[in-house]
Amino acid sequence: MSQNIHPDLQKERNGSSFDKERLINIIDGGKDKTERRREIEKIVLDDPVYDHKSTAFMGRDELYTNSLRKAAHMSQKMQELNLLNPDDFMYYSNMAMPHESSPMALHTAMFLPTLLNQCSPEQQEKWLWKAVGHEIIGTYAQTEMGHGTHLRGLETTATYVPETDEFDLHNPTLTSTKWWPGNLGKTTNFCVLTAQLWIKGKCYGTHNFMLQTRSLEDHTSLPGITLGDIGPKFGYLSNDNGFMRLNHVRIPRTNMLMKHSQVLADGTYVKPASSKLSYGTMVFVRTMIVAETSRSLAETVTIATRYSAIRRQSEIKPGDPEPQILDYQTQQFKFDPEPQILDYQTQQFKLFPLLATSYAFDFAAKFMRAKYHELDAKIQQGLVEEMPQLHALSAGLKAFTTWASSSGMEVCRMSCGGHGYSQASGFPKIYTDATPGVTYEGENTVLMLQVARYLVKIFKGARKGTEEATGFVSYLGPNFSQGGRVAVQMTSASGVDINAMVAAYRSRAYRLIESACARVDALTKGGMEFVFAWNKTSVDLVKCATAHCHYFVVDNFLTGINSLECAPAIRKVLGNLCDLYACYGIAENSGDFLQGEHLSAKQISDVRAKMLDLLAVIRPDAVSLVDAFDFHDRLLGSVLGRYDGQVYENLYKYALESPLNDNDVHESYYKYLKPLARASKL
Amino acid sequence: MSQNIHPDLQKERNGSSFDKERLINIIDGGKDKTERRREIEKIVLDDPVYDHKSTAFMGRDELYTNSLRKAAHMSQKMQELNLLNPDDFMYYSNMAMPHESSPMALHTAMFLPTLLNQCSPEQQEKWLWKAVGHEIIGTYAQTEMGHGTHLRGLETTATYVPETDEFDLHNPTLTSTKWWPGNLGKTTNFCVLTAQLWIKGKCYGTHNFMLQTRSLEDHTSLPGITLGDIGPKFGYLSNDNGFMRLNHVRIPRTNMLMKHSQVLADGTYVKPASSKLSYGTMVFVRTMIVAETSRSLAETVTIATRYSAIRRQSEIKPGDPEPQILDYQTQQFKFDPEPQILDYQTQQFKLFPLLATSYAFDFAAKFMRAKYHELDAKIQQGLVEEMPQLHALSAGLKAFTTWASSSGMEVCRMSCGGHGYSQASGFPKIYTDATPGVTYEGENTVLMLQVARYLVKIFKGARKGTEEATGFVSYLGPNFSQGGRVAVQMTSASGVDINAMVAAYRSRAYRLIESACARVDALTKGGMEFVFAWNKTSVDLVKCATAHCHYFVVDNFLTGINSLECAPAIRKVLGNLCDLYACYGIAENSGDFLQGEHLSAKQISDVRAKMLDLLAVIRPDAVSLVDAFDFHDRLLGSVLGRYDGQVYENLYKYALESPLNDNDVHESYYKYLKPLARASKL
Repeated sequence: MSQNIHPDLQKERNGSSFDKERLINIIDGGKDKTERRREIEKIVLDDPVYDHKSTAFMGRDELYTNSLRKAAHMSQKMQELNLLNPDDFMYYSNMAMPHESSPMALHTAMFLPTLLNQCSPEQQEKWLWKAVGHEIIGTYAQTEMGHGTHLRGLETTATYVPETDEFDLHNPTLTSTKWWPGNLGKTTNFCVLTAQLWIKGKCYGTHNFMLQTRSLEDHTSLPGITLGDIGPKFGYLSNDNGFMRLNHVRIPRTNMLMKHSQVLADGTYVKPASSKLSYGTMVFVRTMIVAETSRSLAETVTIATRYSAIRRQSEIKPGDPEPQILDYQTQQFKFDPEPQILDYQTQQFKLFPLLATSYAFDFAAKFMRAKYHELDAKIQQGLVEEMPQLHALSAGLKAFTTWASSSGMEVCRMSCGGHGYSQASGFPKIYTDATPGVTYEGENTVLMLQVARYLVKIFKGARKGTEEATGFVSYLGPNFSQGGRVAVQMTSASGVDINAMVAAYRSRAYRLIESACARVDALTKGGMEFVFAWNKTSVDLVKCATAHCHYFVVDNFLTGINSLECAPAIRKVLGNLCDLYACYGIAENSGDFLQGEHLSAKQISDVRAKMLDLLAVIRPDAVSLVDAFDFHDRLLGSVLGRYDGQVYENLYKYALESPLNDNDVHESYYKYLKPLARASKL
Repeated sequence: MSQNIHPDLQKERNGSSFDKERLINIIDGGKDKTERRREIEKIVLDDPVYDHKSTAFMGRDELYTNSLRKAAHMSQKMQELNLLNPDDFMYYSNMAMPHESSPMALHTAMFLPTLLNQCSPEQQEKWLWKAVGHEIIGTYAQTEMGHGTHLRGLETTATYVPETDEFDLHNPTLTSTKWWPGNLGKTTNFCVLTAQLWIKGKCYGTHNFMLQTRSLEDHTSLPGITLGDIGPKFGYLSNDNGFMRLNHVRIPRTNMLMKHSQVLADGTYVKPASSKLSYGTMVFVRTMIVAETSRSLAETVTIATRYSAIRRQSEIKPGDPEPQILDYQTQQFKFDPEPQILDYQTQQFKLFPLLATSYAFDFAAKFMRAKYHELDAKIQQGLVEEMPQLHALSAGLKAFTTWASSSGMEVCRMSCGGHGYSQASGFPKIYTDATPGVTYEGENTVLMLQVARYLVKIFKGARKGTEEATGFVSYLGPNFSQGGRVAVQMTSASGVDINAMVAAYRSRAYRLIESACARVDALTKGGMEFVFAWNKTSVDLVKCATAHCHYFVVDNFLTGINSLECAPAIRKVLGNLCDLYACYGIAENSGDFLQGEHLSAKQISDVRAKMLDLLAVIRPDAVSLVDAFDFHDRLLGSVLGRYDGQVYENLYKYALESPLNDNDVHESYYKYLKPLARASKL
């Protein structure tokens, strides 16, 4: 990247304890992957179509147009370059349109996969190649104005009309209006429509239908279809998330996606073979979200950490001999250089736990991804036993990581003071792009309650003998040796031990699940209907599901590091991060650990002391640990997080490029300010 | 407001346990104030200049222009109507430009007060009336690119030139560039410039200078001055936060603001009489921030609560006989109506503690404001003893409330699922307008460390006999009866008692302050320099300062309710909120209370159980409790939070107004989509 590295950053990099390139390889998943990623990133960087004018300078219309321009080019390029592998796809698109929700994203991410997975061969023949050739550009129209995560509540109807062998698609109410589907408003001309299937007065639940929404000739919306953009959002401004109202629109019967279930011409409904198959896709999508949210958090940590290394502000006495600023009381320049803000313990406490979290989530995402592929192979052989626990884990991790990342990204922004609030920082763009992760693909609270439902089922079933506690939930079996209550022996000479901490997390999860079960039972025994008892316990249920995920993430982080083949220096820095992650989680939730007597008050104090010590231990490697994510400047889109640390020069350049500075005197002066001064004089 | 109230909201309002109008009066500070507020709000509502086109539809330039249009009108109107009283000013401006940082805001909020407080009579004569008449429009240029909260670090110089009786104003470095001052970029033609005063090679620290930045004739920037907008931000887009570089710009000596300190023609420097006077302004400004942040949080709670009353989503079994949706498994419409999401315990747990927090912060703001006025009167008599503790409290509360509100507002947004993410919700506008509160007027962490410095000083001094622990910090005296360690007796028949909880908060603050002091002492006794020991304890110091503020807020909330003259029904609902606020804080920080043995594990369980019970207790009054903030729809700017609850109709209207829907086919189709389909076919 740039040659002119800020001396403060250079000093940090020189002081690193490990070989950064090797850690980059680990994060990428191998040296070959690093090389491939960089190769693809270079293609994007060398392509002049992807300029990097700040999208923050653009109004909505310009932004949409600009993104469509890039998206169209990207679609063509990726076919040309044959970047079909999901990794290649990700490398390319992340770099080409970083945190810029594309007006064609759903075509690739949802529409094409749906054609592949839910269409019969004849249907594929009809639509797939047109879609690949961009004649058809599609999206997935599921969510309605009044119905999100709860799919059973969808109201759009697809009623079979045997007389004409057609479906009648209709929105019977305002709340049934399709709302939010990405790219539905202006860009796409087809969609997969999710609707309640009705045959002869009987409803068969939601099914998918292929619907053309706009003319292939002139792109006008078709009769009976009212289409539009839902308006501006917090982020995703380049995406034309849309609405659609259908007024008895007819489609041929054969437009129902018929791979799994069918409607025959006589109105006979043919059921799908298994309902568990769709779990696989959900697991995959949520695994991707975990990976992306970990990445987004890592990006904000990178920005904040680099900026904290070059930003100086006085408060501690200098430890650094370089004069930076005048101390007006002593009238000398050589005293009181302002320290790097990264040297403040409070700043370390904001950033390093989040740095550790980024790594922990990255390990979790990698594990989930490997597990998914393993499982996918088993599904092909009809082995689906592991599916429910993997489904529960992926749902839980999606919620756990998006919540933590969403709040963590804002901590990073706020840790950079005023400049963090500028769009030049890159934070607003990353945050507003990532925070919807708490809502889409299953609202987090709803997901956590699903996880809890699974945990309760296993916990109770294992005691009744109807369920076996294996894999991720093996600790919920009746023979769990610690019973969730025994304090851990942890005061060895070397201080607090990571294995003991992991055990404490496990005990905490166990106890919280046990006590949530007990509460539900007590309420139902008192005569309350189960559904109400469940609701009255739901805060506790979310808490226990969260504790389960927390335990998994800590445990997996430790296991992951232990199973790495890597240099001792790298094992050491990762071990420090794992320790910090574990200590921080205990310190922040110490009440849980104390109340369950998983840890004593003395042990909590030790954990807290160790946490604070670790901040100082990690400090010299902090910049290298964020460098190891190897985010290119283009990808970060941040003046504060530049690799070369030349922040102030580029903040100034950024301001000069702001369109409001096109003229010294803004035209509004003549219209409003000048008359105001005159009016007041009279 | 609207006549057509959604039945779900009407039902909520009918079920309220108290007289809402009376609570509105309490929040306003009296019936007369409610009337006055509504009177002024009506003036704004009746004024067609303040249209309510969504600012989210506008690009930056249009937004700035539109805001300047309104700001100029507002300036004139408020003079016309003689709205000089701070309350009147707030009523008017909140309604006229809700969460729309005005391009003329700093003129009124900072420039005019500075002229009043820091100018000599001759200087006032020269500038004040021109400023009142809008010939001069000014701002306050303090912050620099490289220097924010730490004012001593400012680098801009004002060097006295005795030969010409002038000051030479200069930016010696890039980092000294003035950066962030509101309205500096395009709007203002004057500023109060903060710069290091140099006389004959000696620096006298920062002082303020009057500087004309633009021509009064044609608004062009003056020679030697480079001015501009710093570019787009997360929010504040209608505000031209600016930058300024000065290249040896000369101003007359008499342009230094000379009320408190002076430079004479011969270069003699005359010191100000007292440095404590400036504390008053800081206390006032921070008090205002506490009030505003409480308001912003209350607005988001209002939006989320009303929406949660009309939004229905299935999961619990129905308690409501009205059919809403088809259950396709039973083929019947009359079963399984989706419950209001406000009935989910998890949703209550997200919103009601924040509802309680809004009220708690409102009580804190009111107390601070009263205290400030009391103090201001004393200062006129030269009585300044109370100043340090009030200064510390206001700094702490500013940090405590802005942190809690900033994260709380995002919880509210996320509690509304997808629609919360739309600009139609109003959340993004409110959040991005309020969240900078964690940074401006003193970065929160820095402020908390100042509070800690004060607490440590009192704690140690009270033991040495050099300080007296009185007022807000009286519990830090050596005779504090509980010693911070004795568990509270709380298991009375009536359950957990609020007084005992307040005592536990006090004990917690005491213990955390004590232990932070002990850590600093232990480190210095071990040979570490105080400044480094302080830094190595700073995480603990922030924690103890936070606990002090938390104790104050709980205690003040309780005291405030007890001293109200109000109907028993109102006392009861406020008491519930106070209980919930106290319980929630304990449950979320239970580790602190357990570790210090302020509460036993059993007591923590009781507090938690009570907290969950309170959710159900507050539920029937929730809508009325947010109604009692009496936020007009115009002010909320939210489709989700509408008083009439007609959310879906208006979401649809909002979308139709979105400029992206001006044409069915967006012009980018011809440029990018059509060619793409053709290219792929070849």
